[in-house]
Amino acid sequence: MQRIKVAVIGAAGYAGIELVRFVLNHPVFELVAASSDGDAGKALAEVYPALVGQTDAVFSTHDEAAAADAVELAFLAVPHTAALAMAPGLMAQGISVLDLSADFRLKDPASYERWYGVPHTQTGILAAAVYGLPELNRAGLKQLAARRADTAVLVACPGCYPTASALAVLPALAAGLAADAPVVINALSGISGAGKGATATTHFCNANANPNAYGVTTHRHTPEIEQTLSQAAGAPVKIVFTPHLVPLTRGLLATATLQLKPGVSAAALEAVYLDAYANEPFVQLLPRGIMPRTASVAGSNNAQLGIALDTHTQTLVASCAIDNLGKGAASQAIQCANILCGLAEKTGLTALAPVV
Amino acid sequence: MQRIKVAVIGAAGYAGIELVRFVLNHPVFELVAASSDGDAGKALAEVYPALVGQTDAVFSTHDEAAAADAVELAFLAVPHTAALAMAPGLMAQGISVLDLSADFRLKDPASYERWYGVPHTQTGILAAAVYGLPELNRAGLKQLAARRADTAVLVACPGCYPTASALAVLPALAAGLAADAPVVINALSGISGAGKGATATTHFCNANANPNAYGVTTHRHTPEIEQTLSQAAGAPVKIVFTPHLVPLTRGLLATATLQLKPGVSAAALEAVYLDAYANEPFVQLLPRGIMPRTASVAGSNNAQLGIALDTHTQTLVASCAIDNLGKGAASQAIQCANILCGLAEKTGLTALAPVV
Amino acid sequence: MQRIKVAVIGAAGYAGIELVRFVLNHPVFELVAASSDGDAGKALAEVYPALVGQTDAVFSTHDEAAAADAVELAFLAVPHTAALAMAPGLMAQGISVLDLSADFRLKDPASYERWYGVPHTQTGILAAAVYGLPELNRAGLKQLAARRADTAVLVACPGCYPTASALAVLPALAAGLAADAPVVINALSGISGAGKGATATTHFCNANANPNAYGVTTHRHTPEIEQTLSQAAGAPVKIVFTPHLVPLTRGLLATATLQLKPGVSAAALEAVYLDAYANEPFVQLLPRGIMPRTASVAGSNNAQLGIALDTHTQTLVASCAIDNLGKGAASQAIQCANILCGLAEKTGLTALAPVV
Amino acid sequence: MQRIKVAVIGAAGYAGIELVRFVLNHPVFELVAASSDGDAGKALAEVYPALVGQTDAVFSTHDEAAAADAVELAFLAVPHTAALAMAPGLMAQGISVLDLSADFRLKDPASYERWYGVPHTQTGILAAAVYGLPELNRAGLKQLAARRADTAVLVACPGCYPTASALAVLPALAAGLAADAPVVINALSGISGAGKGATATTHFCNANANPNAYGVTTHRHTPEIEQTLSQAAGAPVKIVFTPHLVPLTRGLLATATLQLKPGVSAAALEAVYLDAYANEPFVQLLPRGIMPRTASVAGSNNAQLGIALDTHTQTLVASCAIDNLGKGAASQAIQCANILCGLAEKTGLTALAPVV
Repeated sequence: MQRIKVAVIGAAGYAGIELVRFVLNHPVFELVAASSDGDAGKALAEVYPALVGQTDAVFSTHDEAAAADAVELAFLAVPHTAALAMAPGLMAQGISVLDLSADFRLKDPASYERWYGVPHTQTGILAAAVYGLPELNRAGLKQLAARRADTAVLVACPGCYPTASALAVLPALAAGLAADAPVVINALSGISGAGKGATATTHFCNANANPNAYGVTTHRHTPEIEQTLSQAAGAPVKIVFTPHLVPLTRGLLATATLQLKPGVSAAALEAVYLDAYANEPFVQLLPRGIMPRTASVAGSNNAQLGIALDTHTQTLVASCAIDNLGKGAASQAIQCANILCGLAEKTGLTALAPVV
Repeated sequence: MQRIKVAVIGAAGYAGIELVRFVLNHPVFELVAASSDGDAGKALAEVYPALVGQTDAVFSTHDEAAAADAVELAFLAVPHTAALAMAPGLMAQGISVLDLSADFRLKDPASYERWYGVPHTQTGILAAAVYGLPELNRAGLKQLAARRADTAVLVACPGCYPTASALAVLPALAAGLAADAPVVINALSGISGAGKGATATTHFCNANANPNAYGVTTHRHTPEIEQTLSQAAGAPVKIVFTPHLVPLTRGLLATATLQLKPGVSAAALEAVYLDAYANEPFVQLLPRGIMPRTASVAGSNNAQLGIALDTHTQTLVASCAIDNLGKGAASQAIQCANILCGLAEKTGLTALAPVV
Repeated sequence: MQRIKVAVIGAAGYAGIELVRFVLNHPVFELVAASSDGDAGKALAEVYPALVGQTDAVFSTHDEAAAADAVELAFLAVPHTAALAMAPGLMAQGISVLDLSADFRLKDPASYERWYGVPHTQTGILAAAVYGLPELNRAGLKQLAARRADTAVLVACPGCYPTASALAVLPALAAGLAADAPVVINALSGISGAGKGATATTHFCNANANPNAYGVTTHRHTPEIEQTLSQAAGAPVKIVFTPHLVPLTRGLLATATLQLKPGVSAAALEAVYLDAYANEPFVQLLPRGIMPRTASVAGSNNAQLGIALDTHTQTLVASCAIDNLGKGAASQAIQCANILCGLAEKTGLTALAPVV
Repeated sequence: MQRIKVAVIGAAGYAGIELVRFVLNHPVFELVAASSDGDAGKALAEVYPALVGQTDAVFSTHDEAAAADAVELAFLAVPHTAALAMAPGLMAQGISVLDLSADFRLKDPASYERWYGVPHTQTGILAAAVYGLPELNRAGLKQLAARRADTAVLVACPGCYPTASALAVLPALAAGLAADAPVVINALSGISGAGKGATATTHFCNANANPNAYGVTTHRHTPEIEQTLSQAAGAPVKIVFTPHLVPLTRGLLATATLQLKPGVSAAALEAVYLDAYANEPFVQLLPRGIMPRTASVAGSNNAQLGIALDTHTQTLVASCAIDNLGKGAASQAIQCANILCGLAEKTGLTALAPVV
């Protein structure tokens, strides 16, 4: 099969290097540039010794990456606002963009400005972008794939918390089972979610053995989760979102508590979830009574899900485990890219990760 | 000062050996017996090498411990039902009991039978017992102290999850700020909470890097938490309680989400919490914007607390960190024992634990 | 390409399930049986939730696995003595064996009896077996591959400590650079090296934050390492081997200290190592000054190596990192099986593992 | 008893805050200043939330600390060269110094300059300083205590690796049991040993699950260890020292391999060690066959030790566990300060640390 040339922009960060890994493992995508303005000129293997002997690739500058010949897709693993600045130029060159930043996730530019503190300067691209959660927007992503014949397109890849939160409750909301009450989401993230920067927060002696809530009432993933849940419910949904850091490198667990309408039974709930995820290649509903664990999905694009009905309060407890760098970032972007290129969704994503 | 002789029953488990540690560090209590039917005859230092050179104590049998001369207090760190069997005999000997099991926590014997699967056979003792959360029942504990002049008494020491959960929301409930909706409590526990038994769950390779919810809708601390919150509120309170295991040895974090009545302001909330905990020797309300972390309280009897008002949903998010083996078990029992003996509550509990 | 049918015997243990993973990821090998007498009848995904949605395979009994149709290769991930019992029957059926136990590693049956406490009952198979460290015995493995046309053969796959220890010092010994003094090897193993059994040792609360030496002077890998180093040196080599457990799930680091002959220079050493490993597909000598880290090889068949000359004592310090379940067990067996089947050594072993 | 006023200089680092903790727990020492030029003006509890509610102390500048009234002792937990600059001024004021930096450890100024890259400017103080390993230099420390009546004195507190390394082999060397060969020391340190600075090394995602050797042949503790071992042996001793970082917050394990003279028996070895440490208040020789573990000494001033004779190579393997911030830094300085003040060595150091 004809290889498809791709560039990873911002490749030295955690999501970026994970994108590089998935591209190198991919049978169709071909890595032609991996940029990092900070590490430009260094071998990838110098920065990440795990890559010694695995690749000779060298970090380029962004400009070099953008100028690489025949690139069809660019993955942007850059901070918010950087994608705002980069996407137009890439798209003008005909390069479609898988943006892992937050810049094109919120459909309402005013909401973006409120939560990110800067005005949205690319509202045209924003309007045409599709939010890349395949379990919610597969149809939209396929339309984008069709449009890509004519023009560069952009997929706004979801954040890690929003991905796990959404997968936990989408079926219940879409089926109209939820009562009118805020959805409470408590989530646990591994430390890689805090990024590669060396800070007081990411110091081993702070992060180890030291779970803690953070960003309470203020985390920027809040409006993104609400937007997604509201889309699924067909009506505004509010959440109370409390993220926590826990001592592991990779992994994210979102546990949602959702008030159900009176009369919704465990059997009805289960049927709705089974139906919603029966054909999803990367979402596994665990058997009754089993709750998901982050280690089970580490290194993969899988999301594992457990649900329970608390009859005492008529409440759904749904817990979803993903790898924050996998389904929560890099491999979900690959899944979207596969759709964008008309490939099977599992292409390049089938290698089993360690199970111990 | 005259030493008070104490026995630790079930001293080889994690809570038991922590009780031994706090007793050995205590200026008034004197350890005269540490029993473990499984390890009887072995030196404590053989089972816990950290004690090599620190104590020559040897595990006795329960019968030997119960027969020790002049014991005034017995700490029971035994499984539920074992305390039911042991307490009457000890109390008949005039020994007051600090029971760390669940056997005397639920005031309603029917609830005990429903959640623990066995009938409650000591309803007389149960009726006279006081639930040993000093922040809620200090007056009751002091009455017990007075009664101890005449008769042996029993304190039902709280579970780890109930301690942290209660401290997180008691002030709001007691002040009547809560709306009529279930309180959602998500909690994270270190692996020592699963006990000393070697199981598939406690295997390092399962527990490491692998947060997961468990006991969803079925955890036995649920009725205990509801009983405590209802006492504080003066009306029935329901909860949705979801515990998780996270990869650390010690530490417990309970994050509660509580719907507030309309109009309750952040200032009002803060005032209520400041007032409730101003004179508590072991509860620290953190400055606005700071959420508690488990490492800060490891090895101590402290509980650290952070609160935030989510104005978007008129919800309180309150997070409380304790050491599950400290304030959640052993050192809280010492605090109760101090009250029972008319000692200052901080006696033996002032040594600072490591802060890094 | 024609698939080659393989069975994994003892598939429920850590090395076993990792073999299953590598076989499922392999383009030529086809898993036709995964046996576990303890878990027979259960789905693999029931025991290892990471496999939910990834495979429908069910654990069989050993007898069912041995009777599976057209199996060409059997991987034995069973305790020592079990392989002694199983190998003859499998080989009589024409099935070649990759044995991950210790039963056929020591060439001297008397040494086996001394260290493992039982007589060696299959000395014929032992004599014909090849020790499966490709970096040392590639020629022997290729001869075995040729012989497999006529008869079933057996590869004795190396232990985890011997693999890392050997790769650390083989080049220096083979080149005759070592003085006549014991080689000191200190090694660190993740907890998965202690096996899947739930024991006091593997309990999270014991293993976490608690490095310790064990098996000092008595570890059974000692004679295996000495045999391998002596083969490389062409003369008897003695070692002082001190393994340690350290708090991680997977990973093994062996640091060897080796007295050099006078006059051996850093340049000479480096040349010898570069030459020895230049064409090895899975051994990476790191740039001067860089020492290997276990996370860099986790989940892979790679071994990373760093060397330094201590001129102060004319000593080589060589440190080698592997994944104890990868190059130290499962994936090295796959590498050997590839050689046995005439496949490229990297077949099925090229997927990059996570680099963060 | 009359309190003794002390200052902790450099109190915001890990060793510094641990010194603060031990001083606050001490019945005789009274903390009158805790300086940190970087955090001056902040409450200790702001920087270390574990101290909320435990102390109202505020970080001062160094100048403020030096000017505090009636300070008798200053603990210097500052980087090397800073102690060179600070000690003379403090001593001129009559303040005795417990220096935890490396500035006064190496008796040979030329060695200091070679390893630390700067000339030693305080050779007079250096000559009079005593190296504060009580197990080796108790007599010298007592002489210093006597001299303190007349003049300020300085104790050069040992590094963490040198403390554990020395305790592992001092008895064998002092008894003349060692053959003439380099002592091989492999050591494992928790991440707090790398200091409080947020760096690529201390990032959780780098340090977690990732043991690695570092500073091979170049670590600055090498000459300090050699000096100490040579003093004990009464003759020059060379070492090959290989430190490793392992994923835990606190704890240090040094495993030494030492060639013995022919004929030295296990019984003779054991007798020598038992005799050497029989009266040491903080060193515990574990029973035959037991090797020490770092968690057993975390938070304390204890050193636990195990020894084994490898008869195969006539080699001693001795492993010693300490807390790098305890006996390896802060609490050993307190032990020295106790000696300096004529207090019992265990004063303020008896509280048991958690044993689970």
